[in-house]
Amino acid sequence: MFFASDNWAGAAPEIVEAVVREAAGFAASYGVSDTDRAIEARFSELFEREVAVFFVATGTAANSLGLAAVGKPGGAVFCHREAHIVEDECGAVEFQTGGARLMQLDGPDGKLVPKVVERAIDRLPPGFVHAGQPMAVSITQATEAGTAYSIAEIEEIAGICRERRLPLHMDGSRFANALVHLGVSPAEMTWRAGIDILSFGATKNGCICAEALIFFDPSMAADLPFMRKRAGHLFSKTRFVAAQFHAYLEDGLWLAMARHANAMADRLRAGLAQAEEARLAWPTQTNEVFAILSKERAAALKRAGAVFYDWPPPHGLEIDGGAEALVRLVTSFATKPEEVDRFLAALKA
Amino acid sequence: MFFASDNWAGAAPEIVEAVVREAAGFAASYGVSDTDRAIEARFSELFEREVAVFFVATGTAANSLGLAAVGKPGGAVFCHREAHIVEDECGAVEFQTGGARLMQLDGPDGKLVPKVVERAIDRLPPGFVHAGQPMAVSITQATEAGTAYSIAEIEEIAGICRERRLPLHMDGSRFANALVHLGVSPAEMTWRAGIDILSFGATKNGCICAEALIFFDPSMAADLPFMRKRAGHLFSKTRFVAAQFHAYLEDGLWLAMARHANAMADRLRAGLAQAEEARLAWPTQTNEVFAILSKERAAALKRAGAVFYDWPPPHGLEIDGGAEALVRLVTSFATKPEEVDRFLAALKA
Amino acid sequence: MFFASDNWAGAAPEIVEAVVREAAGFAASYGVSDTDRAIEARFSELFEREVAVFFVATGTAANSLGLAAVGKPGGAVFCHREAHIVEDECGAVEFQTGGARLMQLDGPDGKLVPKVVERAIDRLPPGFVHAGQPMAVSITQATEAGTAYSIAEIEEIAGICRERRLPLHMDGSRFANALVHLGVSPAEMTWRAGIDILSFGATKNGCICAEALIFFDPSMAADLPFMRKRAGHLFSKTRFVAAQFHAYLEDGLWLAMARHANAMADRLRAGLAQAEEARLAWPTQTNEVFAILSKERAAALKRAGAVFYDWPPPHGLEIDGGAEALVRLVTSFATKPEEVDRFLAALKA
Amino acid sequence: MFFASDNWAGAAPEIVEAVVREAAGFAASYGVSDTDRAIEARFSELFEREVAVFFVATGTAANSLGLAAVGKPGGAVFCHREAHIVEDECGAVEFQTGGARLMQLDGPDGKLVPKVVERAIDRLPPGFVHAGQPMAVSITQATEAGTAYSIAEIEEIAGICRERRLPLHMDGSRFANALVHLGVSPAEMTWRAGIDILSFGATKNGCICAEALIFFDPSMAADLPFMRKRAGHLFSKTRFVAAQFHAYLEDGLWLAMARHANAMADRLRAGLAQAEEARLAWPTQTNEVFAILSKERAAALKRAGAVFYDWPPPHGLEIDGGAEALVRLVTSFATKPEEVDRFLAALKA
Repeated sequence: MFFASDNWAGAAPEIVEAVVREAAGFAASYGVSDTDRAIEARFSELFEREVAVFFVATGTAANSLGLAAVGKPGGAVFCHREAHIVEDECGAVEFQTGGARLMQLDGPDGKLVPKVVERAIDRLPPGFVHAGQPMAVSITQATEAGTAYSIAEIEEIAGICRERRLPLHMDGSRFANALVHLGVSPAEMTWRAGIDILSFGATKNGCICAEALIFFDPSMAADLPFMRKRAGHLFSKTRFVAAQFHAYLEDGLWLAMARHANAMADRLRAGLAQAEEARLAWPTQTNEVFAILSKERAAALKRAGAVFYDWPPPHGLEIDGGAEALVRLVTSFATKPEEVDRFLAALKA
Repeated sequence: MFFASDNWAGAAPEIVEAVVREAAGFAASYGVSDTDRAIEARFSELFEREVAVFFVATGTAANSLGLAAVGKPGGAVFCHREAHIVEDECGAVEFQTGGARLMQLDGPDGKLVPKVVERAIDRLPPGFVHAGQPMAVSITQATEAGTAYSIAEIEEIAGICRERRLPLHMDGSRFANALVHLGVSPAEMTWRAGIDILSFGATKNGCICAEALIFFDPSMAADLPFMRKRAGHLFSKTRFVAAQFHAYLEDGLWLAMARHANAMADRLRAGLAQAEEARLAWPTQTNEVFAILSKERAAALKRAGAVFYDWPPPHGLEIDGGAEALVRLVTSFATKPEEVDRFLAALKA
Repeated sequence: MFFASDNWAGAAPEIVEAVVREAAGFAASYGVSDTDRAIEARFSELFEREVAVFFVATGTAANSLGLAAVGKPGGAVFCHREAHIVEDECGAVEFQTGGARLMQLDGPDGKLVPKVVERAIDRLPPGFVHAGQPMAVSITQATEAGTAYSIAEIEEIAGICRERRLPLHMDGSRFANALVHLGVSPAEMTWRAGIDILSFGATKNGCICAEALIFFDPSMAADLPFMRKRAGHLFSKTRFVAAQFHAYLEDGLWLAMARHANAMADRLRAGLAQAEEARLAWPTQTNEVFAILSKERAAALKRAGAVFYDWPPPHGLEIDGGAEALVRLVTSFATKPEEVDRFLAALKA
Repeated sequence: MFFASDNWAGAAPEIVEAVVREAAGFAASYGVSDTDRAIEARFSELFEREVAVFFVATGTAANSLGLAAVGKPGGAVFCHREAHIVEDECGAVEFQTGGARLMQLDGPDGKLVPKVVERAIDRLPPGFVHAGQPMAVSITQATEAGTAYSIAEIEEIAGICRERRLPLHMDGSRFANALVHLGVSPAEMTWRAGIDILSFGATKNGCICAEALIFFDPSMAADLPFMRKRAGHLFSKTRFVAAQFHAYLEDGLWLAMARHANAMADRLRAGLAQAEEARLAWPTQTNEVFAILSKERAAALKRAGAVFYDWPPPHGLEIDGGAEALVRLVTSFATKPEEVDRFLAALKA
C-alpha cells in the first residue's frame, strides 16, 4: 500500500525497453545524436509549434534553470506560498538565479489568486531599485494540493503577466495528470493559454529519470545551453533520456498512465468520502488525495502497512491539531485497484 | 570507427539489466531505498573505510559540488591549465562555489608539477584578504592527456596540501582506466595517497548515467546533501543510479571494462607507433591516444568513416600548426579490435 | 519641510570636522591604521565585551554580509514581511548569501510575533533537504514602522533562536533612535538580550557614510574579512569611516542626535493627534510618524513645500484606499522645531 | 617616507572642503540630488559624449560590477595574470558575476599581448558550451607594473574585441596617472580608442572615497542600477561622493595631483638609476617604481623609517631570490620631494 509519492513507483516496461534498445550502439554524446534530434522534433509536434527542449536530471533543475533563463538582478518571482519551488527545492531557484526572491502569495486550493498576484507585482514599480524588479510568475499544474488550474484561470494570470511583459512559468511535474483531468491538448494548457516556460515532468509518471525544460519562444533560451552545462545538467549520454521520452510519448502511453493514476486517486477519494473515519481536506482533481484522520487512525494504517506522509496543514484549513492529522495519498501509473481497496478496508478495521 | 569519446558508447548489458530489474517494484525515493543503502555500504567496502557517497547526474556536477563542499569566500583552487574543470565545464566550479577562482598551472603531460603548485599556493598568504584564500588542489586521474599520476606523484602533491591543510580533490572521470593501469587498489590510489574528495565516474566506462561524489572524511560533506538538492542534483528515483553502480562493481565488471578500453588504446598506440603517417604526441597510459597527423591524412580518415576530434595543442608541443593536426582517439569498453585495425588500415590507405 | 527620510539630512559638524582632521596625514590603508584600531577598541568598550567590527558602505551591505557570515546552502532567514531586507534591498541578502530564502512573516506594528516565528522555523525540520535549513532570524530595531521591540520582546525571540541554535541578527539602521526610546545601554539592547549580529547604522543619524557590522562572537566572523573584500566593501582609506565613528560616539553625540530626532517626531505626532485633518496609523516610538490623510490634503501639503513619501499600507490597516493616503514622515538630527510647526500649520491651511 | 601605496595618503584640501560644504543642507538621497545630477553632466562633458555614471565604494566594486554588467553564463574574462582583478580582489569578479572565469594571460610589463589575447579567446568557439563563452577583455591603465598602454596598444586590443563583439573594460584605478603620462584627453584614452567600460578611480589620487563606474554606451548599463543596489553599493547620501568628484575635476585639480605624483616617482626613479645599491626592475611611466635591492638594504631602509612593500617577482624577471628583493615604491599627490630625497639618501647610508 504505497501512497507516499508517485516517485516511489519504478518505471513502466515500455520506458525500460527503450533504454535497453538505446544501450546497444554508438552515438554522438551531449545531445546531438539522432535520438536526441528526433525527440526535439517530437516535442515541437506535440506542442504544435517550434519549441526549445532541454533535458535535465530533476524537476528542481528544470524549475530553477527555467526561471534562471529569465533572471534579472534583484528579480522577484511571484508564486504560491506552498509551491514546490518555495517549500521543496532547498532554495534552488534562488541559487540558480544568483539570488532571485520568491514572493510567497496565499490562495486557496494551492492556486494563485489573480488579484493577489497583481497587487504583489505592482508593489515593485519599474525602476524602483530598492524593491528589485519583477522577473516571472510561476504556477504549478497540477498544484501541490492535487488540484488543477482551469484554462480560464491560467489565461487570467497570463493576462496579468502579458500586460507587464512578465514571463509565465509552469511547474509541470505532474503535467500529464492535470492534462487528462482537463481533457485539453498540451498546446491548450500551455502557450495557447499564455505559458512561456514549462517544466515538463515525466519521472513521476513512469520514467526512470526524464525531465524536460521547454521554452515556447526559443529565443528566450539563448543562454540556457550554457546555464545547463554550468549547472552540471548536461548529460553526456543524453540520448538515454531522449529514448525515455520517445517511449513515453508514443501511442499515448503517458496519457494512459496519467489517466490510470488519476482513476486510482478517484477510487481512493470515493472510498474516503463514504468513510466515517476520515474526511477529505479539499477536492481531488488529479492523483493526490488529502484527507484528515485522527492521529490514532493514521498510526493504525501505517502499522497495517500503508505508506504515506503527514502533510503540514495549509493556512486556513480547519483541523484539530492535537487530535487530527492531514495526510497526503499519492497514486501512480503502478498503483493497483486492489491496493486502494486494501487501504480503504484497513481504514475501517 | 568511433574514437570521438568514450561517452559515445552505449551501456554494458549487465548495467542495463540491473536497471530493468529495479524498474519492477516500489521503493523509497530520494536516496533511502534498500538499493541505495546497500550501495553506500558497497562503496565503503570498496575503499576499505567509511565513505560518504552522493550520486549526481554528471562528472561536471561531481567536480563542482565536490569543490563547493570545501568552498571559502575568495577561495582559490589550484589545478592544471588543461584540466576539465578549466576547459570543459563552462565555469561550473566557479558557479557552484559562488565564485571560486581556478588558478591555472602549467605542467607537462597534463600533470601538475609539485613545485609549481607550492609556489602558486604560497602567493596567497594566510589572512591576506586581497589575494583570497587557498581552498583546494584538484588533479585529474587519468589526466586529460591520457596519462596517469603515479602513486608517488599523488603523494607528493598530497604532502604539499597536508602541510597547508588544503583538501585534495581527484577528478576521476576515468578513474577505472587509471586504476588498472597502475594496478593498485582504489584505496591506494585515493585516501591512502592523500586524496580527500573523489569524483568517481562510471558513465564513460559503460554506464547509462552514474557518477558518484565520494568523501573519505564524511564530516567534510556535512552540507553536501543541501548543496546537491539546491543544485537540482538529487534524483527522485535515485535507486536507478544505485542499481547501475551495483552491477558496475559486481564481479570486477568495471575493471574488466577499463582493461579492455586500455588494451584497445594500446593496440591503437602500437599501430600508430609503427606507422609513418603519424607520430604519437606523448605516451599513452590509459584509454586516450594523442597523435599528430598531416591535416590531409586526418581529413581522409574522417572521410573513411573514422570519428574523432582535433585537439588544441598544449603549450610546448612541437607541431606544424599549418600542416599538422593533433587528434585525440578514445577507446571504450565497447571498442572492438577490428575497429582499431580498420582505423590503422585506413591510416595507411 | 523635509520629512522624506533621515538620509536627506547632511552631516553633523562634529562628524565633518573629524574627516577634515583625518585628511591631513599619511596612515596605513585597508583598516589597520591607528584610527581604525582605536575604533575597534571603542566599540568593544561601548558594548562591554570584545566585538568584531567591519565597516561597510551601506546598511544593505551590513545586513547582507552579516547574514552571509552565517550562511548555509539552502538557508532560510526568518523575518518580517515588511523588513528592509525584504522590501528595500533589491535581493541583497539572497545575492550575498548565494541564494538564501527570506521567509516573510506577518505581524502587527512591523514586529515579528514569537509564535509565528517558531511555527515557521519548525516547518524546516533538521536534515530535511527539500525544505532547506534554518539559518538566522532577523529583526529590525527600530522597525520599518517606527516602532521598537521592548527588551522582553527581543529576549523572547532570542529564546526561540537559542533553542534551535539559530543566530539572531538585528538590522540597526536606526539603532540609536530605538536605544534612546528604550533608555537602555547598547549591551542591553543587543547581546545581553540575545542578539548575535548587529548592523549598526550611523549614516541616517548624522554621518556621511558610516555603517558598521558587529559580531558579538568574533569567531562567527572568521570569513567576513574575505566576504567583505570579495563584495568590494573593503574601503582603502577606511580610516575616514573610523574617524566618523569616533566623533559619533564621543561625548554622547550619537545619543543626543537621536534624542533630538525622536523629539521632533514626537512633536509632529502630538500635532497630528490633535488635528482633525489626519489620524495616526499606529503609535510612534522613534523618529518615524505614519499618518493617514485625505489624498487632497497630502497633495496640498506637497504643494506647500512639504517633502514626504506615500507608503504602501500594510496588511490589516484600515484605510479608504480611494480617498486616503498613508504617509511616512521622518525626522532627523537636523530637523528644526520650526519646520515641524510649519508642517502642522500647513496641514490645517 | 611613505611609499607603501597611494592610498596611504589622506585627502586633498579641495576635496575635503567640498564635503564640508555639502554637509550643511538637505537634499534628495540615493543619487537624485542636484549635486548628483550635475556630476553626471560633468562626466559627459569630460568624456565628450553621453555616459552613464555609477558611484561605488571601491575600485574592486567598480571592476566587478562593470564586468557583471556584461556577464554571461559560463563567461570568460581575458586579462593579465597580474591584473588587480586576478591578484588583489579576492575573487570579486567571479563573485559578482555569479562565476565568470578570469583567463590569466602572460605578457611583459604588466600588459596584455594582442596575439596572446586573440589565441585565448579563440579557444572558446561560439556555441561550444563546454568551454563557456567569451564575455569581456579587461586591461589596467596604468598597469599594476606602473607602466601605461599607449593609445595604439589599446586600439589593437580593442580591434580584437570589436571583431568578436566583446566589450573592453579598463581598470582605471590610476587613470589620471596614465592620462597625464600619455598627454591625451580622457576621450582619447577611452572610448575613442575602443574602451566600453571604465572604472574611474579617484580615491588613490587625493579623494576620501570616490570611485565611478562609467559606461560609454549607457544601454550597456540597463541593469546596473539593480546590480549596484543588490551589491550594497548604492550609498544613501551619494551626494557626498558626487561633491568629491566635483572638486576633483574642477580647474584640473585631478591632473595636477597626478602630475605631481608622477613627477615624484620620476625623481625617485632618477635617483635609483644612479644608485649602485639598487637597479630598476623595468621602466617607470606613472607613479609606481619597481626596484631590486639586496634584502639587507631593503631591511635597512625600513629600519630608517621608509614604508614600502616587497612585491612578488613576475614570471621572467631576473632576480636572485635568495639575496635580493623586488620592492614597490608608490608616490601620491601628497608625496614631498624632500621625502624622496631622504629615501635616496637613506639608500646610500
